[in-house]
Amino acid sequence: MSMQTVAKTKYALEDFTPGRQFDLGPRPVSAEEIIEFASEFDPQPWHLDEEAGKASILGGLAASGWHICAMMMRMLIDSYILESTSQGAPGVEYCKWLRPVLAGDTLHGQSTVLSSRPLASRPGIGAVKFDHKLFNQHGELVCTSANTGFFASRDIGGAN
Amino acid sequence: MSMQTVAKTKYALEDFTPGRQFDLGPRPVSAEEIIEFASEFDPQPWHLDEEAGKASILGGLAASGWHICAMMMRMLIDSYILESTSQGAPGVEYCKWLRPVLAGDTLHGQSTVLSSRPLASRPGIGAVKFDHKLFNQHGELVCTSANTGFFASRDIGGAN
Repeated sequence: MSMQTVAKTKYALEDFTPGRQFDLGPRPVSAEEIIEFASEFDPQPWHLDEEAGKASILGGLAASGWHICAMMMRMLIDSYILESTSQGAPGVEYCKWLRPVLAGDTLHGQSTVLSSRPLASRPGIGAVKFDHKLFNQHGELVCTSANTGFFASRDIGGAN
Repeated sequence: MSMQTVAKTKYALEDFTPGRQFDLGPRPVSAEEIIEFASEFDPQPWHLDEEAGKASILGGLAASGWHICAMMMRMLIDSYILESTSQGAPGVEYCKWLRPVLAGDTLHGQSTVLSSRPLASRPGIGAVKFDHKLFNQHGELVCTSANTGFFASRDIGGAN
């Protein structure tokens, strides 16, 4: 990554200070996209069919947990990652699916910086740990997750 | 869930005994599906473009970590979940993306039962914890994860 690229970027490693919070969403969730994702990756009845969803403990046509994660990723992308010096991520610390996300719901939330540390193995890169929370339109917490992302520092590749 | 449904099901709670292993895959991963998933959920350059991937630490057009998770879910579905008394899952204990999954790779792996316990709050339902491992065609571990799923016991709803 060139200095010029980093200079144009809104969020570098130094900007992810503990406690800083980023808003996520709003993101409406349609029946069509619930069924489309589930058909490809998680074809269980309650993710594919309204009646099967109503008959289950989920209470309606419900998004796959992995679909919730994928939508959360897109919300993170649109909130700050695409305008950052992101260098990818090593995984997910945990993810809890606390309530069903049903067709017609709208998600929103916050992503909060928990900690930041330099990577000894990759000079100029740091690991930032985030807490992510998603809520539905009733203000109910539907998903909570923590994961770490790698970000380049603002002065990578240069001495300024 | 009726007794008849459960009786027809291949895997009930009682069948997920610690140490039992289920094969996953093989699952080929195409450039087209990497780009399709990333366009919707994780539009970072190395998930969208071969040249951008080669220029990154990933070394080529690489699947989003969340896409790896979604493909793993489909492999679990095809291996045992769709033939089970699955009642959904509360989340993911952890997931580590250890190596890039590149266009043209083929994934395979194993899902191993770690433990099983009854849910006090839901009679006839148990929580089964699994370890999942995915490898590429070179035998390299690309993803490891643990998560818990809920399964109904074989005799739910009846006295036999």
